[in-house]
Amino acid sequence: MRDTEELWRDFARPIRTAEDYIGSLRGRRMNIFFMGEHVSEPVDHPVIRPSINAMAETYRLASEQPELATAHSDIVGSAVNRFLHIPIKPGDLVGKHEMQRELGRRTGTCFQRCVGLDAISTCHSITFDIDANTGTDYHHRFLSFLRRAQTANVVIGGAMTDPKGDRSKPPHRQSEPDLFLRAVRRDDDGIYVSGAKMHQTGAVNSHWLIFMPTMRMTEADRDWSVVGAVRVDAPGLTYIVGRQTNDTRIVDGGRMDAGNAQFAGQEALIVFDNVFVPHQHVFMDGEWEYASTIVERFTTYHRSSYVCKTGLGDVLIGAAATAADHNGVSNASHIKDKLVEMTHLNETIYSSCMAGAHQAKPMASGAYVNDEMLSNVAKHNVTRFPYEIARLAQDIAGGLIVTMPSEKDLQNNEVGPLIRKFLQGRDGIEVIDRMRILRLIENMTIGRNAVGYLTESLHGAGSPQAQRVQITRAMKVEEKKSLAKKLAGVSERTG
Amino acid sequence: MRDTEELWRDFARPIRTAEDYIGSLRGRRMNIFFMGEHVSEPVDHPVIRPSINAMAETYRLASEQPELATAHSDIVGSAVNRFLHIPIKPGDLVGKHEMQRELGRRTGTCFQRCVGLDAISTCHSITFDIDANTGTDYHHRFLSFLRRAQTANVVIGGAMTDPKGDRSKPPHRQSEPDLFLRAVRRDDDGIYVSGAKMHQTGAVNSHWLIFMPTMRMTEADRDWSVVGAVRVDAPGLTYIVGRQTNDTRIVDGGRMDAGNAQFAGQEALIVFDNVFVPHQHVFMDGEWEYASTIVERFTTYHRSSYVCKTGLGDVLIGAAATAADHNGVSNASHIKDKLVEMTHLNETIYSSCMAGAHQAKPMASGAYVNDEMLSNVAKHNVTRFPYEIARLAQDIAGGLIVTMPSEKDLQNNEVGPLIRKFLQGRDGIEVIDRMRILRLIENMTIGRNAVGYLTESLHGAGSPQAQRVQITRAMKVEEKKSLAKKLAGVSERTG
Amino acid sequence: MRDTEELWRDFARPIRTAEDYIGSLRGRRMNIFFMGEHVSEPVDHPVIRPSINAMAETYRLASEQPELATAHSDIVGSAVNRFLHIPIKPGDLVGKHEMQRELGRRTGTCFQRCVGLDAISTCHSITFDIDANTGTDYHHRFLSFLRRAQTANVVIGGAMTDPKGDRSKPPHRQSEPDLFLRAVRRDDDGIYVSGAKMHQTGAVNSHWLIFMPTMRMTEADRDWSVVGAVRVDAPGLTYIVGRQTNDTRIVDGGRMDAGNAQFAGQEALIVFDNVFVPHQHVFMDGEWEYASTIVERFTTYHRSSYVCKTGLGDVLIGAAATAADHNGVSNASHIKDKLVEMTHLNETIYSSCMAGAHQAKPMASGAYVNDEMLSNVAKHNVTRFPYEIARLAQDIAGGLIVTMPSEKDLQNNEVGPLIRKFLQGRDGIEVIDRMRILRLIENMTIGRNAVGYLTESLHGAGSPQAQRVQITRAMKVEEKKSLAKKLAGVSERTG
Amino acid sequence: MRDTEELWRDFARPIRTAEDYIGSLRGRRMNIFFMGEHVSEPVDHPVIRPSINAMAETYRLASEQPELATAHSDIVGSAVNRFLHIPIKPGDLVGKHEMQRELGRRTGTCFQRCVGLDAISTCHSITFDIDANTGTDYHHRFLSFLRRAQTANVVIGGAMTDPKGDRSKPPHRQSEPDLFLRAVRRDDDGIYVSGAKMHQTGAVNSHWLIFMPTMRMTEADRDWSVVGAVRVDAPGLTYIVGRQTNDTRIVDGGRMDAGNAQFAGQEALIVFDNVFVPHQHVFMDGEWEYASTIVERFTTYHRSSYVCKTGLGDVLIGAAATAADHNGVSNASHIKDKLVEMTHLNETIYSSCMAGAHQAKPMASGAYVNDEMLSNVAKHNVTRFPYEIARLAQDIAGGLIVTMPSEKDLQNNEVGPLIRKFLQGRDGIEVIDRMRILRLIENMTIGRNAVGYLTESLHGAGSPQAQRVQITRAMKVEEKKSLAKKLAGVSERTG
Repeated sequence: MRDTEELWRDFARPIRTAEDYIGSLRGRRMNIFFMGEHVSEPVDHPVIRPSINAMAETYRLASEQPELATAHSDIVGSAVNRFLHIPIKPGDLVGKHEMQRELGRRTGTCFQRCVGLDAISTCHSITFDIDANTGTDYHHRFLSFLRRAQTANVVIGGAMTDPKGDRSKPPHRQSEPDLFLRAVRRDDDGIYVSGAKMHQTGAVNSHWLIFMPTMRMTEADRDWSVVGAVRVDAPGLTYIVGRQTNDTRIVDGGRMDAGNAQFAGQEALIVFDNVFVPHQHVFMDGEWEYASTIVERFTTYHRSSYVCKTGLGDVLIGAAATAADHNGVSNASHIKDKLVEMTHLNETIYSSCMAGAHQAKPMASGAYVNDEMLSNVAKHNVTRFPYEIARLAQDIAGGLIVTMPSEKDLQNNEVGPLIRKFLQGRDGIEVIDRMRILRLIENMTIGRNAVGYLTESLHGAGSPQAQRVQITRAMKVEEKKSLAKKLAGVSERTG
Repeated sequence: MRDTEELWRDFARPIRTAEDYIGSLRGRRMNIFFMGEHVSEPVDHPVIRPSINAMAETYRLASEQPELATAHSDIVGSAVNRFLHIPIKPGDLVGKHEMQRELGRRTGTCFQRCVGLDAISTCHSITFDIDANTGTDYHHRFLSFLRRAQTANVVIGGAMTDPKGDRSKPPHRQSEPDLFLRAVRRDDDGIYVSGAKMHQTGAVNSHWLIFMPTMRMTEADRDWSVVGAVRVDAPGLTYIVGRQTNDTRIVDGGRMDAGNAQFAGQEALIVFDNVFVPHQHVFMDGEWEYASTIVERFTTYHRSSYVCKTGLGDVLIGAAATAADHNGVSNASHIKDKLVEMTHLNETIYSSCMAGAHQAKPMASGAYVNDEMLSNVAKHNVTRFPYEIARLAQDIAGGLIVTMPSEKDLQNNEVGPLIRKFLQGRDGIEVIDRMRILRLIENMTIGRNAVGYLTESLHGAGSPQAQRVQITRAMKVEEKKSLAKKLAGVSERTG
Repeated sequence: MRDTEELWRDFARPIRTAEDYIGSLRGRRMNIFFMGEHVSEPVDHPVIRPSINAMAETYRLASEQPELATAHSDIVGSAVNRFLHIPIKPGDLVGKHEMQRELGRRTGTCFQRCVGLDAISTCHSITFDIDANTGTDYHHRFLSFLRRAQTANVVIGGAMTDPKGDRSKPPHRQSEPDLFLRAVRRDDDGIYVSGAKMHQTGAVNSHWLIFMPTMRMTEADRDWSVVGAVRVDAPGLTYIVGRQTNDTRIVDGGRMDAGNAQFAGQEALIVFDNVFVPHQHVFMDGEWEYASTIVERFTTYHRSSYVCKTGLGDVLIGAAATAADHNGVSNASHIKDKLVEMTHLNETIYSSCMAGAHQAKPMASGAYVNDEMLSNVAKHNVTRFPYEIARLAQDIAGGLIVTMPSEKDLQNNEVGPLIRKFLQGRDGIEVIDRMRILRLIENMTIGRNAVGYLTESLHGAGSPQAQRVQITRAMKVEEKKSLAKKLAGVSERTG
Repeated sequence: MRDTEELWRDFARPIRTAEDYIGSLRGRRMNIFFMGEHVSEPVDHPVIRPSINAMAETYRLASEQPELATAHSDIVGSAVNRFLHIPIKPGDLVGKHEMQRELGRRTGTCFQRCVGLDAISTCHSITFDIDANTGTDYHHRFLSFLRRAQTANVVIGGAMTDPKGDRSKPPHRQSEPDLFLRAVRRDDDGIYVSGAKMHQTGAVNSHWLIFMPTMRMTEADRDWSVVGAVRVDAPGLTYIVGRQTNDTRIVDGGRMDAGNAQFAGQEALIVFDNVFVPHQHVFMDGEWEYASTIVERFTTYHRSSYVCKTGLGDVLIGAAATAADHNGVSNASHIKDKLVEMTHLNETIYSSCMAGAHQAKPMASGAYVNDEMLSNVAKHNVTRFPYEIARLAQDIAGGLIVTMPSEKDLQNNEVGPLIRKFLQGRDGIEVIDRMRILRLIENMTIGRNAVGYLTESLHGAGSPQAQRVQITRAMKVEEKKSLAKKLAGVSERTG
């Protein structure tokens, strides 16, 4: 049986800072594509780099505010980055959410590291449960993996969403079996997996990936019921980075036109072609009965992770308030009212995420998971309110956010002075500052980071209907009927 | 100085049960009016009695589920009814909210005891603060009062809302000084107060009332800046019980027509005419600077108390689900979807209330108060979502809730059989049970308890605009602007 | 064959005025029940009378504004009340809707005469179509009936909604065949019908009823596929008037407590027991294929008739604005903003109703019917916006609408003066006027006329889901897909 | 006085077809900038060309469906393009709106020709009114201009929105007088104007521009109170074309990535530097009292022109329905329900626009203008519903719309096959077609045409608050108060 030692050799020196992290990404041999071209070094790719910067903030925050972004891990006996910490009390989830909001405030986009945290949190309890029921050794393997990951302080990505093909059929009945990731071969050293994972947040910016099944499996789907960890540069992996609205603005327009030049999100399609996973990194292999529980626990964790959007909301509220200042209308009652409404919606999201963290429940492994109902309710609000917050931000900002000349026009000798003359707002405000704020609002509501603030808020961790299904299961309707019958004087027997 | 001992003599024997409580209300000499008539014994008044029943459930729950509805009080060194317990840790507020939801589920209406709890919670810290700053003795007085109240297990009502008259003027500039409650006289024994308090929840069903100022005061409003406790049967008090939609149904129609025959809410206008308050029961007298803090703390407590409406929501969701069963349409996808939506909205309210309790902050006195922003956000959701939940309940229930014959028709020999024939729903459901559930939905959405579920949700603890003002104060807009400027590359100085 | 002449004898003298109309209702021998008691003279029944007053306004308006509430009928060759006029051009429907809004403004409630108008409009085209296809004589019969009705200027009620029983089964498969109205017998003189019609608006206040099937029929449902006209006092008819929220306020509380003492709506359950219908008044008998068309046309007419609610909306907006005046806050920006929002929603309803009238389409008989899509869209807005308008009205009005003392308290010597002292609002406003306006808002949002403004808006002319089904049919989704494919460059064949 | 003849020489040959139109744009000498570079030939500029194509559809539609897109003009005595036709009956406005919806369906974007139509419609009545009151000759001048324009079949752009600078000051008090367009000089031949107009829709794609004041003027603002027409290539004009989200996709990504490669909108900042306007083309010069009426009439016309968005809505509904087909979920009840909701909202917009056209009112000149209230209500719905429609489209489409690989990836030999393998949806659907539809949804909801579908819907023809101000003026609140008082029994005098 092959040793996993060598796989960790590159990470012998722990990543300590944001700069360490960025350095750690250089020189990997990965098969990455973007816009039809092979990307040799993502760190230097102008479109990809902002997403690396956003991820790097998870390290920077740990340096700057360790009380917020690190936690003591019993597994290694010291403080670790909170994105590698298994929650073992409600306070850990509360702390996680506070950290997520702060990172949203710092980056104004998706910083991509939550999926991995929610994946390891899920693996902790699920491996424990499987072992307890079937005598396997997954939990021990997983803890070994996690110990190394915590020590090395790596980024773990979580890979869940399969392409699914014909949605009316389970994996084993698909005409193309690879439409769900599966073990295609097993040997003494490990297993070999093929298939693909879609919409993979921060994939290229990770060091490791944990793959998990995406939905309930049946007994015939054993080969598709696999969980494991692979290095992002494992042979057989191909990454196709998705296009985002305005992704090339940074190239064709410059920093101002980009709106938020420094930070962005990233999603990729990852193709697995016969990728080897040593047994030590296999955390489930064939236990199909647990697939649905994996999904439920993961989504319960992950839906609350969308508290990060309240950090983006803070930025957008601030941007709208600044735009109102620049326009000289910050005292108009309808402007103030819209800012209050934006805040109210933003804090409603926050409160539903936080309530679910405070009311987290322990599982057999000792890990805690958010309250299921509240986490689904929280995410369901995330699928609605950011759209209204964005609409209100555009309302306050004015139409200029979509009709504004480019930064290059501003720099042009002939039209630059005209723009400076005619786009002036309130006295004392530089035109370029006014434009910057408007570009930021464009960025978050109809530009590159609207991908993360809006569409990802809708579909990440499951589309609205997925939450409705889970709310249905958690709503205890029979109990509620009994309450009503009792007050109405209706017998449980006859009515 | 007159002793307050005698005022407590009637409460020498602690109230232990719901029955004790109801007994304790009998035989008081109070000046109560309803529909133009003096009410000699409210306990036996058919329209008032359901509100007493609802209050009595706060005692019954303490008997049946002491872990939920009692708490250990350091003040008396034993368990007390949670409605008399000062929150000294976040868990106390969490427990309070769980209790409130459960009482909403039991009664389907306003059980009226929260105002008093929120009043004593406010007095605890405010008396402490005043003493600390001015060397007064209010906190000690208050603790003495509370110790007796906890021991006797009485109902304390909170009286805050003054008539206000011309809303553009402070108390001392009103043409009629009594439009705000005020000290009209002081002597060695105590103070004498005149004025009125409006919308007083459960006033007639209380044993004691704590009066407080309703808004920010100015220095010239010293006489209006008074807090104190009086017995509900103190000389000089007059109660005019307000009319509620369908309040007389129980009289003219019978139990079924009433919808929820057992439980209802109660609000009254209380007039104070030179009511004596012994010094021992005066907790503030003239410290006008603290009036706004009283209001802020009280509303922060009280806005989260509206978590009770999620208990009513549970009942209404259950009633709608039962009506769908009766109609044989419980599997229709649009019905299921509406129940999910109702639940989602209901749990969103719950989560915003709970988050604010978990994130409560301590004050100097040791008492904890809910997070201000989250409590306001919670209440703001309460001003919206119950209306939509009610609309959806009516949607599911069908038009019959407003066109249905009366119970007396059902009992009539000629038309009763016709009703039984034509109102039959799904097989196996009794027509009378179907009607009962529909009457309950009528009761909660357009009948007597819609007062509590809808209008009171809108206006109780402050109208929507009051929350918006407080959200504005708590929203830290300058901090949010800085976030935006940083990401947009705008200098704090120039932009 | 029995002559129908005698049936019209009582109406030899045309009804000309509102007073004539009320007189015409006296002395009928009808079997009416309300709250378990036989109602001998509805005109004098205090609870029923306001609904008669509302109906009477349809006559008064015709007298006062004939250009609005009458139209030239080619059938009789003179002007007739518009409620008896078949629309033969879009302008007739436009005029109808303007009249309906005005009556809503006058009464603040349901004036009950629309169902009949929409029933005769439907019969006009449907009898024409059946005759054209099957050689029957229904259209001629119908025109004869209508000629007399126009001449006599009677109120025709429309009776559509059957009890339906088990909603998953067609009429002929119900265990109780009477759960849908049906012909139980036929002879040379006519047919005999049994069954019931529910939620019958203004039933007791009508002179004639037209019954129609309530949904699509199958071939086996021939006996249930009947349309015809009967006098409201035909032997075999029983009326059970439904209870409305606060219906007895007028009795127990007085005019002020009633909120709108003069006007109210009315719904009744009508039971048909072997009721004879002479052939001359049978407009369909067994032509089951037309049942679904009847329903579609009727609902298309009737859903737009809900434009009346914009008249109620006008009243409620006016009431809220007056309450704001009384409170002295009419200049607060949030108050003005809420009034604008109420108006916006109200006019949105209006516009969708009007657009469907202007874009009405002719049918073979020459009658025009509203545009189907727009009429459904209009009604769908009616199922939503009045609830929000009502919520905003309560927001502006303040909590006093549900905690206010009764009129009898105001009249009481002891507490009356206290109420007058403490409920005073802005200078110069009488307390009683302030209370009256608040009672009107209570009446329309949580009182008797909330039945018409809210629940009836939701369920009348079909519940929300019924409109969604019809919107689905009318939405031409294939055409829309083609538009998208063309722009996206997708071949119709492959994609 | 200089003749205007020469200005029309280039248009001697009327534009008849879309191709003629595109040809007519070639070879003009205009000062156009985009992204910092001078654009020598906009027709061949890949980013600008789609906006020209959209404008060209206004010609194509006139050829293909003359009954829809042309109208008989009494001014020239023959049919003219409807975009040059003054509405002289409600049917003209109805026809206009039907045409606008159809163009929205054809292009999926802003086709840019409405502003000019609404400008000439406004000039028609306003010049008439000024002449009638002051004896000027504007109407005649205007008709001469219009006659030539109709004959030549040119595109007229409307230029209204001034930069405004400090919004709290009128033009004459701005520190920079050019912040509102103004006459800087007058001579015998004409006037000379300087300033700028922002957000000018289709500016570069027009032949002529009509400039108008943007708001109420005061007497001291005479020089800013000017209306006139200039050729787009008049000396002194500079155009800076604004950036739109994803505008360069067509360049960097290809047709598929563009989403809608053929059509787009266009907005530009136009700077006027001493631009000469011959007297024959001046339609107002100094009559400041009419400025507010100009704005009111123009916005009343133009707000209803947003009916075009229902055409875009049709496309987006169709795209979402197709995406659901491709995903194999078109029968899921929640999908069908979302399509119904999108349709309902879309048709609500349509109905409010159409109602205002049908209920148009005549002005003194004989021109008709939409009902003011309804037009404002219509536009107000446009500021809300497209956002919700877009959200629902994204919900149905799935997250792939923002994570999808590029067209170039699809064409790449290595990853293209992987994309084709893993992005397959329902059997029989080509992956490329699936991607095309998703790119179209991206285009309309978060891409280039979201500019027109969302932000322009919010701000075009005035931001939401502008409509609310106008609704306030039109809502007749005093009349509504009277209705309420009458029903409540409140005397007009005392209450």
